[in-house]
Amino acid sequence: MAAPAPLSPLAPKSYPVLPPIAGVRFATIAAGVRYSGRTDVMMALFDRPAAVAGVFTRSKCPSAPVDWCRAHLNGGKARALIVNSGNANAFTGGVGAAAVAHVAEAAAKAIGAAQSEIFMASTGVIGEPLDPTRITRVVGALVADARADALPAAAKAIMTTDTYPKIATARVKLGGGEVVINGVAKGAGMIAPDMATMLAYVFTDAAIASQALQTMLSKSVEGSFNAITVDSDTSTSDTLMIFATGAAERALRIEDAADPRAAAFRHALDKLLRNLAHQVVRDGEGARKFITVNVEGAATRKAAKRIALSIANSPLVKTACGGEDANWGRVVMAVGKAGEKAERDRLDIYFGKTRVARQGLRDPDYDEATTSAYMKRDSIEITADLGIGRGRATVWTCDLTKDYVAINGDYRS
Amino acid sequence: MAAPAPLSPLAPKSYPVLPPIAGVRFATIAAGVRYSGRTDVMMALFDRPAAVAGVFTRSKCPSAPVDWCRAHLNGGKARALIVNSGNANAFTGGVGAAAVAHVAEAAAKAIGAAQSEIFMASTGVIGEPLDPTRITRVVGALVADARADALPAAAKAIMTTDTYPKIATARVKLGGGEVVINGVAKGAGMIAPDMATMLAYVFTDAAIASQALQTMLSKSVEGSFNAITVDSDTSTSDTLMIFATGAAERALRIEDAADPRAAAFRHALDKLLRNLAHQVVRDGEGARKFITVNVEGAATRKAAKRIALSIANSPLVKTACGGEDANWGRVVMAVGKAGEKAERDRLDIYFGKTRVARQGLRDPDYDEATTSAYMKRDSIEITADLGIGRGRATVWTCDLTKDYVAINGDYRS
Repeated sequence: MAAPAPLSPLAPKSYPVLPPIAGVRFATIAAGVRYSGRTDVMMALFDRPAAVAGVFTRSKCPSAPVDWCRAHLNGGKARALIVNSGNANAFTGGVGAAAVAHVAEAAAKAIGAAQSEIFMASTGVIGEPLDPTRITRVVGALVADARADALPAAAKAIMTTDTYPKIATARVKLGGGEVVINGVAKGAGMIAPDMATMLAYVFTDAAIASQALQTMLSKSVEGSFNAITVDSDTSTSDTLMIFATGAAERALRIEDAADPRAAAFRHALDKLLRNLAHQVVRDGEGARKFITVNVEGAATRKAAKRIALSIANSPLVKTACGGEDANWGRVVMAVGKAGEKAERDRLDIYFGKTRVARQGLRDPDYDEATTSAYMKRDSIEITADLGIGRGRATVWTCDLTKDYVAINGDYRS
Repeated sequence: MAAPAPLSPLAPKSYPVLPPIAGVRFATIAAGVRYSGRTDVMMALFDRPAAVAGVFTRSKCPSAPVDWCRAHLNGGKARALIVNSGNANAFTGGVGAAAVAHVAEAAAKAIGAAQSEIFMASTGVIGEPLDPTRITRVVGALVADARADALPAAAKAIMTTDTYPKIATARVKLGGGEVVINGVAKGAGMIAPDMATMLAYVFTDAAIASQALQTMLSKSVEGSFNAITVDSDTSTSDTLMIFATGAAERALRIEDAADPRAAAFRHALDKLLRNLAHQVVRDGEGARKFITVNVEGAATRKAAKRIALSIANSPLVKTACGGEDANWGRVVMAVGKAGEKAERDRLDIYFGKTRVARQGLRDPDYDEATTSAYMKRDSIEITADLGIGRGRATVWTCDLTKDYVAINGDYRS
């Protein structure tokens, strides 16, 4: 194993206190799945069945726990969530599926639930069989230890090569009462031999039907986790789930995602997911700059997002940002290669608020000194205005540095 | 300007001698477009109108000379080709188009041709206006100096950050005679502030109608220049053209690309383009390894190519190769994210001839020592067999190294 990476320079300066959420408790343990001397399994226990919704990797080679979660999401009810780090249980075939079933069986038995109410995720090495007994033998201890205030500890137990835990919280009015939304996430760290998972879990004491929760989550993910990219590579295990215990006092029960009384909740969920997604980008491997890419004036919103991702995934744009170089020619290149409608002579490009290119030419007022100073910041905003329509989109990424290459090129020894 | 990069470790050990091609002569000159102390303009002069065909960048923001060439290709006849390095004349708006027209006018006048018979390309900085007088004032000298044996010098004049000129040659029987095919190319070098062009020119004394030539070229490019990737970024200026003078003695005239008598020519063209394309990859920025990615057993040929490009463009696969790490988990990830049909439990992965993963699990016979030794080679072959169909494709790429980041992250000073 490589030594732990130093804390990302883009790490948050402070962490919020997470208020407890009625109806759910958390536990962690050092189960020795792969790591030693640290916690590597977390469990969330719901006192009563919680409404659940989730979105998962689009990979055609998903991990065994992703297959399991997808299969059981239709039930809409969760009694427990178990996540381990150190082993992704991906590309492990029938053995991997059996391991998931063993863990589900043990957890269901321990808490008197149906196996279909147990959700799981694994993050870490791909292609190594996961020994389920490492987890099944600690289920009893996890159930006994579960506490309402242990979510921050859970956020640490699911880290692999993350340099900091990602947590976020919100309070929001829902009908006559107030509900809490807490979220945790881990980013893609991929070292020795290959770890590749984005996981995020959101818990709320709101009372929201699972169908409504799924609709809200699927919509919210487009502007958050589906709008970030570290290196264009997609994990086999990406998982984002939300659990609603319904245990908040006097909280309205929401059956329909479009219910106008849930507007504040939807807004808070959007914001919380965006916050967690940004924390993942800020902990991207080797990241030194947080980059916001705005595309405006595209033919459609879909075109805008495709162009924004083309810019955000371009190695040449990302290395230029790392080099603090306002290299708008590379932004033109990335707009051009996206395959969406673009007209050279209508394209304006901004770094921050400075327009560097205007209608197909370098801006006559371009000032190198201003732009150079701007590029030294640790957050950079690039805007491409295509000038042909009303489609707009924003995505977030980080720069591509020698540290990314070092982290991912280290021999697995 | 950054200092010239050292010769790529993957550079050819020797260069072929290019036999002269009847009907075409070449000249180069130091015109001072941007560089000093080196040639930066090349001209090819056809004694009689040559048949011409071309394929160009799919970028929606193409350079001014790409627009010009596309507009005039339908005429099917070329009298001259002029290429400059140092300035790409891309994202230069109406000024850029005017510069192209000025050069065409001067060249047409100098040799008594129509402007539509003059083809052009520019490679170098994006977004800087190209001063056409730097080129128009040397046209006379170029015409006076043109020689049949100056193609190698032309290959050097079009280099930007290439570390070696790319040349290739073939002799092939065509009917009762023998024809020669010579080709030159330059790769994507992108430094200070941003250079991004793949150019390749092929010359033959065969007598082939321009329509037939276009068909052959479009087909041949799929297995050569459209099957390579250095960093997934697409230039605004990519240009591949072929010129046929028809001046070979006793050479059959080919009107139809499917003519069975041209089979040897088509085969030689395929091989020559593949050779040039490989030379471009071997001179990829920071490249230390030449990587062949084979995909077999995919649902269709198109699916196979998309999966192969997903593997070849994955930063995680490329950094692993750079780190001499047979990290097949990342190959799985790249297969999964390609969006094409794949079944985890049927996927086999090979590094060289060693099968490292078999039907969804690490190969039981996997030998780390053998694979580690293999990964130290400077040419690596990765094969993914999806086991679900007959689609196959091969693409070529290079590794992603700290030198790539250094070359592209250097501030434009």
